[in-house]
Amino acid sequence: MLPLQQFQDFIKQHQLFAKDDKILVAVSGGKDSVLMLHLFKAIGVNVGVAHCNFNLRADEAQRDENFVKMLAVSLDLPFYITHFDTKKYAAENKISTQMAARDLRYNWFEELRIKENYDYIALAQHQNDAIETILINLTRGTGISGLHGILPKRDKLIRPLLCLTRQQINEAIDNNNLDFVEDSSNLSTNYTRNKLRLQVIPHLQEINPNLEKTFAENIARFADVEEFLAIQVKKLSAKLLNKRGDGIYIPLDELLKLQPQKLLLFELLKPFGFSESTIEDISNSLKSLSGTHFFSASHQAIINRNDLVIVAKDSNEHFNQFIHPSTKNILFGKHEVKLSFSTEIKFEIDANKAFVNADKLIFPLVLRNWQNGDKFIPLGMRHPKKVSDFFIDEKVPLHLKSSTPILINGNGDLVWIAGMRQDNRYKLTTATKKVAIFELEKY
Amino acid sequence: MLPLQQFQDFIKQHQLFAKDDKILVAVSGGKDSVLMLHLFKAIGVNVGVAHCNFNLRADEAQRDENFVKMLAVSLDLPFYITHFDTKKYAAENKISTQMAARDLRYNWFEELRIKENYDYIALAQHQNDAIETILINLTRGTGISGLHGILPKRDKLIRPLLCLTRQQINEAIDNNNLDFVEDSSNLSTNYTRNKLRLQVIPHLQEINPNLEKTFAENIARFADVEEFLAIQVKKLSAKLLNKRGDGIYIPLDELLKLQPQKLLLFELLKPFGFSESTIEDISNSLKSLSGTHFFSASHQAIINRNDLVIVAKDSNEHFNQFIHPSTKNILFGKHEVKLSFSTEIKFEIDANKAFVNADKLIFPLVLRNWQNGDKFIPLGMRHPKKVSDFFIDEKVPLHLKSSTPILINGNGDLVWIAGMRQDNRYKLTTATKKVAIFELEKY
Repeated sequence: MLPLQQFQDFIKQHQLFAKDDKILVAVSGGKDSVLMLHLFKAIGVNVGVAHCNFNLRADEAQRDENFVKMLAVSLDLPFYITHFDTKKYAAENKISTQMAARDLRYNWFEELRIKENYDYIALAQHQNDAIETILINLTRGTGISGLHGILPKRDKLIRPLLCLTRQQINEAIDNNNLDFVEDSSNLSTNYTRNKLRLQVIPHLQEINPNLEKTFAENIARFADVEEFLAIQVKKLSAKLLNKRGDGIYIPLDELLKLQPQKLLLFELLKPFGFSESTIEDISNSLKSLSGTHFFSASHQAIINRNDLVIVAKDSNEHFNQFIHPSTKNILFGKHEVKLSFSTEIKFEIDANKAFVNADKLIFPLVLRNWQNGDKFIPLGMRHPKKVSDFFIDEKVPLHLKSSTPILINGNGDLVWIAGMRQDNRYKLTTATKKVAIFELEKY
Repeated sequence: MLPLQQFQDFIKQHQLFAKDDKILVAVSGGKDSVLMLHLFKAIGVNVGVAHCNFNLRADEAQRDENFVKMLAVSLDLPFYITHFDTKKYAAENKISTQMAARDLRYNWFEELRIKENYDYIALAQHQNDAIETILINLTRGTGISGLHGILPKRDKLIRPLLCLTRQQINEAIDNNNLDFVEDSSNLSTNYTRNKLRLQVIPHLQEINPNLEKTFAENIARFADVEEFLAIQVKKLSAKLLNKRGDGIYIPLDELLKLQPQKLLLFELLKPFGFSESTIEDISNSLKSLSGTHFFSASHQAIINRNDLVIVAKDSNEHFNQFIHPSTKNILFGKHEVKLSFSTEIKFEIDANKAFVNADKLIFPLVLRNWQNGDKFIPLGMRHPKKVSDFFIDEKVPLHLKSSTPILINGNGDLVWIAGMRQDNRYKLTTATKKVAIFELEKY
């Protein structure tokens, strides 16, 4: 007898798919996927069979492919096959063979699903796989999100075999005389999993013979806690993260109230890719001076007056930022430009400040990167000069060239190469009534 | 060199105690506790030494006691010793020797702490103990609260040695030539822990040589999630649990909105001792008919109109409950009594209902248990009868006698033995203008 009831109950309990959905079943030919295919067939679901040949173990891979094809034909099911040059893909992408195989198969399954109009992709992971995953995560280091094991449903992937243990699968295969191949392409059976499977979990089963059931219950509890945290963080994000212009502003006083602060800061900033140790730094720096900054691969976080401001790295270097008379400060890559006005006509000699004749400004001004063809009249000169030549004369290195903010007047004139030189046409004169002071801060 | 910096940093980080606090150090004589004592002494904390002789392995136990006493004397520290008849205590309380030893030592430490005026009790658990605890909890089944491992501080217990791994302790003992005894009284070394220590954890360390550090980080993350959940549940409790009279009322519509419902219901009802499976039943019954009820060892939960009502089992049987004209229903032990009024003069023959001449009622009425000396005139009779005699005639078993609600008029007359017989004086007559209908529901 096949464990049909368990299979159906689990599908229902986790709402894996609807009655008339079409399911693409990933079948390697091993016990797990073969049983899953028979279970789907037995309960009358509309399924197709997908098999990947990774060309990793030549003869065996061909044997597996033939076996799965015959199985699909004998069950009168559509059969889909693909062949990968896994090693080549791994070499090209500088990843392990295992990661390569994983990428390749998931991508192909999803393409196939869309092309052939299937609703879900079914993978044959079972309860023991889930236990192994949790122990691996714990051993390598994890938070609450590493404790839900393998989820029964995630996007278009479903795992209905999580209702069974490895032993139950073996028994079902034996009792029903189901044919299968020894799973040479079982890519999840790597060194770490094997160690846990053979050397660790048996000892835990001596302590608790119902380990699989216990872990399934653990997992359900942990998943609930994870869901609760996610719901609360979502609410908190909506409340605290304010998108303004190019940045996301988070009030520091609100962050200081969070409890536990590190956890919530981590969850709030997760979308921006900050590492745990950087989050810890940020958490310890919430009372620091304005200007303190932190980086992830994609973003920077800056303590800016009363806010923690998150800006995509460079994102704000690549398009124009408008400056209005009311603008007080504007973030630009790793820079911040501040604007103030004065009716006292004075100036300082400081490359990081520009004292501009405000009467000549046409708002909105624009702050942008240097563009090929930009020209200006350097302060003290009479003739226009190409900015590229100016950069060369000043020996400005390439990476600074592209990140230097350039201030442009509403009429298109270049007003200031921030941090370097302002334009002669906008300098203060005896006729100036009002001074616009631009100040560059570098982080 | 002793690992003083690590020890001090950990104490500071977890705010284990204040500078001038007196610490009672539990010393078995084994490596862990001996090192901890030396560390305390070296950083100049005011400590005393407490040793338990469990009389479990006669010669060895005496050897250990002598060793710890000499150690305390040589360090010029106060020494406290006690002797337990552990086996006798275990037999009397029907618990394992290990549980008995645990009970005895914790109780004695706390008594000693108070008597001798110490601030905290220091126990010598280390990082590997914490890993074992988590793996034991996972193997036996746990929620998030089973993942914080061993807490550095809980009430008056502190565990500063959690800053070190077993290997670091062994190294410190070796490098400093510290004397110790092989820990015959190490009661935590039971079958399960030994299995994990010797057969499981070494394999995990092959996967990750920094397992202790990784687990310490895991633990910190899990503890944060646990704290967050606790904070949110506390807020939720304050919002949803309304104490009214003898019961705690929780609006059903609010419970139905909770997400994830089972987790939050479990956390909200945790103080009342409901099992996880009962919580699951309650969660599935929130839309059930009024009157559906559930029990824990100490409490009952009842679906009551728009609320889930939690009442201490029997708590409301042992004092008077007042009934006002506005009272619609009142909980009484496993019973509920409902009150309504009618100007239509009619009645039914139903022991669970009393149709009472409302004109004669003097509010507030009282609902209470039977008391010795209670008399009434049974419906249809002319002469008073002792309630105790009535119970005997009706063959009411003892446990029902004490749980039967008795309705008493404001003038002291017995009006109704709920579920059995009403009083003749309060029956409906042709002169009755208004009927009070009392209805008994049993859970």
